[in-house]
Amino acid sequence: MGGSFRGRFPLAGRDLLSTRDLSREEILLILDTARSMERLARSRGVAGVLSRKVVAVLFLEPSTRTRLSFEAAAQRLGARVVTVAEASSSSAAKGETLVDTARMLAGYADCIVMRQGETGGARRAADAVDVPVVNAGDGAGEHPTQALLDLYTIRRELGGLDGLSVAMVGDLKYGRTVHSLAYVLLPFRPSFVFCSPGELRFPPELVSDLQSRGAPVAETDSLALALKADVVYMTRLQRERFADPAAGERLKGAYVLTRALVEAHHPEALILHPLPRVDEIAVDVDDLPTAAYFRQAQNGMYVRMAILKLILGR
Amino acid sequence: MGGSFRGRFPLAGRDLLSTRDLSREEILLILDTARSMERLARSRGVAGVLSRKVVAVLFLEPSTRTRLSFEAAAQRLGARVVTVAEASSSSAAKGETLVDTARMLAGYADCIVMRQGETGGARRAADAVDVPVVNAGDGAGEHPTQALLDLYTIRRELGGLDGLSVAMVGDLKYGRTVHSLAYVLLPFRPSFVFCSPGELRFPPELVSDLQSRGAPVAETDSLALALKADVVYMTRLQRERFADPAAGERLKGAYVLTRALVEAHHPEALILHPLPRVDEIAVDVDDLPTAAYFRQAQNGMYVRMAILKLILGR
Amino acid sequence: MGGSFRGRFPLAGRDLLSTRDLSREEILLILDTARSMERLARSRGVAGVLSRKVVAVLFLEPSTRTRLSFEAAAQRLGARVVTVAEASSSSAAKGETLVDTARMLAGYADCIVMRQGETGGARRAADAVDVPVVNAGDGAGEHPTQALLDLYTIRRELGGLDGLSVAMVGDLKYGRTVHSLAYVLLPFRPSFVFCSPGELRFPPELVSDLQSRGAPVAETDSLALALKADVVYMTRLQRERFADPAAGERLKGAYVLTRALVEAHHPEALILHPLPRVDEIAVDVDDLPTAAYFRQAQNGMYVRMAILKLILGR
Repeated sequence: MGGSFRGRFPLAGRDLLSTRDLSREEILLILDTARSMERLARSRGVAGVLSRKVVAVLFLEPSTRTRLSFEAAAQRLGARVVTVAEASSSSAAKGETLVDTARMLAGYADCIVMRQGETGGARRAADAVDVPVVNAGDGAGEHPTQALLDLYTIRRELGGLDGLSVAMVGDLKYGRTVHSLAYVLLPFRPSFVFCSPGELRFPPELVSDLQSRGAPVAETDSLALALKADVVYMTRLQRERFADPAAGERLKGAYVLTRALVEAHHPEALILHPLPRVDEIAVDVDDLPTAAYFRQAQNGMYVRMAILKLILGR
Repeated sequence: MGGSFRGRFPLAGRDLLSTRDLSREEILLILDTARSMERLARSRGVAGVLSRKVVAVLFLEPSTRTRLSFEAAAQRLGARVVTVAEASSSSAAKGETLVDTARMLAGYADCIVMRQGETGGARRAADAVDVPVVNAGDGAGEHPTQALLDLYTIRRELGGLDGLSVAMVGDLKYGRTVHSLAYVLLPFRPSFVFCSPGELRFPPELVSDLQSRGAPVAETDSLALALKADVVYMTRLQRERFADPAAGERLKGAYVLTRALVEAHHPEALILHPLPRVDEIAVDVDDLPTAAYFRQAQNGMYVRMAILKLILGR
Repeated sequence: MGGSFRGRFPLAGRDLLSTRDLSREEILLILDTARSMERLARSRGVAGVLSRKVVAVLFLEPSTRTRLSFEAAAQRLGARVVTVAEASSSSAAKGETLVDTARMLAGYADCIVMRQGETGGARRAADAVDVPVVNAGDGAGEHPTQALLDLYTIRRELGGLDGLSVAMVGDLKYGRTVHSLAYVLLPFRPSFVFCSPGELRFPPELVSDLQSRGAPVAETDSLALALKADVVYMTRLQRERFADPAAGERLKGAYVLTRALVEAHHPEALILHPLPRVDEIAVDVDDLPTAAYFRQAQNGMYVRMAILKLILGR
């Protein structure tokens, strides 16, 4: 798509492919709209805002959580949804290209929400069709709605975004989520604490880049130190990432958040996680008022409602 | 969830996990409501009763019939539906627990309809979330809407529930369905005829329990005798259940209902089956006016409409 | 179903199983209605025409494109959709027959759209249920909505259907699509050019039959000659169809449409393809104004809207 009309509805008709395409003002517009979507969903349940629209949801990689979040978002705005959720769709199995699949969907629907494994695939699809495309994750590439929902949750829980210290914990090397979040936070002058095993450090070239853009960065392998931050963003540590499985198991254990740790080090720290978690947050943390990860998942729906409304609204 | 507000809408906001949680009055309320749902569906097709609601349907075990019945029920009440129907959902594949999955869904939807393989799983999920949970089958545990639709069908076909003789035929040892139905019938003073091969008898401790609660029980291996009852509830006999496959095949044949058998022994007997059938009811039975199993399947939709309306209605 | 009431709504309540069941007048009614559906979809997005209806979509063979097209069609008319899209549905896996599955669905929905692998399966299902059945492909049998959308596209692109020369290219032996299209064109006095490798010729008995019904037929293995027709209908050539794979690869290459070929031989030829394509149309053809295959896919939605409206409308 790639339209770029700027008027009263600056995102109308546009794709959402990367957070890097968004200005600070556009990010704030999305967050503000998400807040009003939250109020709308809580008061009305299902609204008629998009009752004339059909949203196509194309998930060629499994991601139940993200798929349902988008579907529920579309439904709560009154839109109709058609879904392809197949490890390998029948069209793909017949050799069809992603671009051809997108062109077909563009004939049926007013918008395409797309998850698939090729980096840049969403952008190539968007270039080929004349309906807006929302990137719901393209392999090692971008997953912009995740970063936006993380941002929304921080703002919603803490009341603001400016000047926060944000710790990121776990697999910081391969974690697309933490890289995107770091960049989307940048305009709000954060400081970072990156906490990981040595083998899974935040990529040094990204650290340098963040620093060159004015963000203080500390690196540590101590979870206790990371817990001093305003926001503690936990991620999964997959044992397969470690060369030595036994050492991996031991290392993993050092990055498990427990209630005792939180209470000992910083009971006020906001605790986030993109979910699904495996065992990196003990269940005894769940009841803490600062454990926001299930609210974070729910916020994903409000943020996706905002994006669909801004893109598809009149 | 587990709310227990009792007022004008005694089931509003409550879970439906087991028929044992329901009083006789609540059961009759569900059956009466199902009757008005049947009228509503027949006259209006799709109503707006739940047009502000989103229902999440989580089926981690395949059961097309039950899933579609719930989805059609929600749709006919105007609700929106989001579905996870995967042998192993992607979240589960990533190691997420059932409780975490339920918490995620509770952030998106107003109600969770859940089918999965762990006995007691629905109750554990319900305890963890603040939206109502409907158990659509939890392994060897409960499948309350099946028992309720069986009851609805008997009442609808015969005009009442009191004092009936009910024969159950086939695999009575492993058949969760027949156990639940026996118990949900109890308040209506039934007498039972249990008809099965010796290896697949109704569990003796349950027989004793039913008797101690005042229900006369007869056991037989003769289908002809079972056919004397007011209601004949057929079930599948899986050959794998028998130690000796050849003997199993022979025994199975002794529990096949044919039109000739029905006409010879009791043309008025109401014939039910939870479906899908394999070959335990010959297709020549289908056209008999007393062959109610396809109406029974349809009644499942009306009963599920009633449950969703009572739980989610204002 | 098989009702045959003819009144103001000549297709109301009827099945659509084969284009052979349709008169020339009924075909034109469907095409005219599809045109008004196209206008409705473009102006309103989602209409309320079928807002009281539930459509069951049963796809036991994978066909993402056709399934989504029907689902989007139903949704754009305001209908509710319940879907079974499983290589082997759980009921089928439990041994249930297609007829029993259809009976179950008829209890939930107002119409069944059905795709499965048994020739004649849709008709057997239709005979067993009292709601209309739409055949969305039954193995080697019929796929009537494909032929109708091809016809709609030709009329929409060229302004009329009468007296056209129509070339069909590729696998004409096994291609159900081209056989159906040839027959549905017959009332409009076409002439045919069948262009294929010798091993994959249009079946001689069908050629004779078309000729005996008054249609001139030419056969060729030259794509350049085929390009002289008013309409060029490309299809996939699967290498597995050839006895000698190496020769197959060479032959396939002779049936690849490129922009250079089109421009050299007949820039006005209307180019169609049922999609998905693999490599039989080069992507440099896509931008030609006569390359109508993505519009053709979109037209599938309008034609299916027309069929659902005519069958389910009051």
